[in-house]
Amino acid sequence: MGLIVQKFGGTSVANAERLRNVARIIADTYRKGNRVVAVLSAQGDTTDELIEKAKEINPNASKREMDMLLSTGEQISCSLCAMAIETMGLPVVSLTGWQAGVQTNSSYSSARIKKIQVERIQSELDRSNSIVIVTGFQGINKFGDITTLGRGGSDTSAVALAAALKADLCQIYTDVEGIYTADPRHVKGAKKLDEITFDEMLELASLGAQVLHNRSVEMAKKYRVNLEVLSSFANKPGTKVKEVAKQMEKTQISGVAKDKNVARLALVGVEDRPGIAYKVFSLLGQNDINVDIILQSIGRNDTQDISFTVKRSDVDKAKEILEGHKSSLRFEHIDVNKNMVKVSIVGAGMLDNAGVAATMFGALYDADINIHMISTSEIKISVLLDEADTDSAVQAIHDRFFGE
Amino acid sequence: MGLIVQKFGGTSVANAERLRNVARIIADTYRKGNRVVAVLSAQGDTTDELIEKAKEINPNASKREMDMLLSTGEQISCSLCAMAIETMGLPVVSLTGWQAGVQTNSSYSSARIKKIQVERIQSELDRSNSIVIVTGFQGINKFGDITTLGRGGSDTSAVALAAALKADLCQIYTDVEGIYTADPRHVKGAKKLDEITFDEMLELASLGAQVLHNRSVEMAKKYRVNLEVLSSFANKPGTKVKEVAKQMEKTQISGVAKDKNVARLALVGVEDRPGIAYKVFSLLGQNDINVDIILQSIGRNDTQDISFTVKRSDVDKAKEILEGHKSSLRFEHIDVNKNMVKVSIVGAGMLDNAGVAATMFGALYDADINIHMISTSEIKISVLLDEADTDSAVQAIHDRFFGE
Repeated sequence: MGLIVQKFGGTSVANAERLRNVARIIADTYRKGNRVVAVLSAQGDTTDELIEKAKEINPNASKREMDMLLSTGEQISCSLCAMAIETMGLPVVSLTGWQAGVQTNSSYSSARIKKIQVERIQSELDRSNSIVIVTGFQGINKFGDITTLGRGGSDTSAVALAAALKADLCQIYTDVEGIYTADPRHVKGAKKLDEITFDEMLELASLGAQVLHNRSVEMAKKYRVNLEVLSSFANKPGTKVKEVAKQMEKTQISGVAKDKNVARLALVGVEDRPGIAYKVFSLLGQNDINVDIILQSIGRNDTQDISFTVKRSDVDKAKEILEGHKSSLRFEHIDVNKNMVKVSIVGAGMLDNAGVAATMFGALYDADINIHMISTSEIKISVLLDEADTDSAVQAIHDRFFGE
Repeated sequence: MGLIVQKFGGTSVANAERLRNVARIIADTYRKGNRVVAVLSAQGDTTDELIEKAKEINPNASKREMDMLLSTGEQISCSLCAMAIETMGLPVVSLTGWQAGVQTNSSYSSARIKKIQVERIQSELDRSNSIVIVTGFQGINKFGDITTLGRGGSDTSAVALAAALKADLCQIYTDVEGIYTADPRHVKGAKKLDEITFDEMLELASLGAQVLHNRSVEMAKKYRVNLEVLSSFANKPGTKVKEVAKQMEKTQISGVAKDKNVARLALVGVEDRPGIAYKVFSLLGQNDINVDIILQSIGRNDTQDISFTVKRSDVDKAKEILEGHKSSLRFEHIDVNKNMVKVSIVGAGMLDNAGVAATMFGALYDADINIHMISTSEIKISVLLDEADTDSAVQAIHDRFFGE
């Protein structure tokens, strides 16, 4: 008995049959005595079709008009879902982003939510006892124009609404059954987690396990919104995302993740004098290139090597920028390797247990896999490997921590 | 040089190519130094497709949710049209009904415009010097919910905006080149009119010549909005609709129209006593059946016949109602004829010229066509004929008034 915000993604509402399924999930939750606010994405390919239509007219359309166009997608799925709930004889109303009071800044196509004026939703919940269906992904700016929230937008809408309405739970329905110890499509023995902490979830998401967008998890953490990730196709509990999760039995880590969007640059033969590393990374930062793992070799013969990883899409630009400053940076040459992968283990209990790193490295050693770079944080250990080793590395690490 | 409201229907914006054409018309008008507000319908079959989607989910969906769904159609066409204008390097902004300040009552699916708050449009026109594209057919009610205006809605939106903005001209772009003296697809020698009065236009529309919906013409007449009906496919002047039109040379009428949605009922052998006609027509009125032409025969042998026409869809219901009161109405039997047509001539100058009726009847007599009933108003003469005579009657009348 409480207020539950439920979010359904594009796959979950792709056609009439699936919309009816979503309507049933919402209706069941309501019939159990809960108040329900459901946040929907656009149906399946609707957004892509609309983008296609726009491109045919104007490949460089303004973001303001793109948002005007794309926001129709959720309006369609929400009104259709409300109609499906009407057939069950339950009170329901669909609301657009502006009707739901979702106020954003004016960054069209990637707007941030500033505030949610919940009066309209609250009145529908309280006075009419209605189920409220809200368009995800969109809001309104101070000019009265429609904005969209960009990637992960509907998850963010749901969490923001849950926070603003002080909901008891925010359920993110998706096409997987929860958060797994590794990608179940590629790793044998991958297990669904019952619980995970916000921080672990954030690390997993940033490491390429894209079930929830980081933006929504960060917001959930900030406003202490209880999240649950579960499948709209299976009637089962999913994974709860909380501030503090119960410690998993016998394991210190909650998952293994991989990220192939990574490339390594190495400045070879850099003159060993102060300030070079600072100069390299501030140059890249000025050009909006994020650096992830950094390895500075110990100097010998008055030169050293500086290696670091960037996103694959940034690597050519990074190389060009550094080549352009070769005379002031004074290095011999730049070595680039695009065929790398970052494999990481994540776990809130890791900090207290030095054995975790040893276990991970041992698993890789036994599998004959070479480690190029290592990076650690409070709840994460990442290693940079050859891309060809990805699957065997993830499986080996997963077997060592989660195997029988 | 002035403020022009241009309305483009669903056929005119059906695909990318036609949207580009509409964008060109708008841009040309703007480049001539005019300020332009364009009102668009949904693209071609969009509305029908959305209705189909809704029916699949819920054939009895609430009108509120249907309006929420259908209003996306114009939002799509308007944002796409704005994108097309962007490619021409002109300032442009698209606005939904609620953004444009179109306030309606709460009759979902057939809302009436109550007021237009023009501040947003006016500011886009004045401050940004922008072309403004507004979604036709829709508005917002006092609850902040989206409403649609029903049949003829986009024409009505355009005229209402022209009235509120005190526009110099409201151009209704459609797929015909203007208003004709008769339907050019069926009548040889049909001519496009340069001008027509509001009243003539209203009669023509109600007689089945559906170029403009009566609702929009009535509003244009009330607020003295200068209308022009023209084609988005031909770069030619259309027909101007005004309070007082220049008298047509040599002709007193502006057009010949037909209406096949008509059936005749005859109460035969009604006892000749006062109040029977009143009783018949109040019974029908109570049941929402509109009666058009009425003919009460002169009594003989203490009985008379009462004939009248109704819409074809109402005829069976009308008969059933009257049969149900046979004992109190006291008639012999009811005669029904569904194969009738109403052919009419319309002209503002008609009242002053008794010869017009004679000319019309003479044309029908010469063509050997039998007249069943006659009805006249200040600017219209209608005759009820056998449906089989439709084409030859319209042609004969047209030839007599407009022929060489």
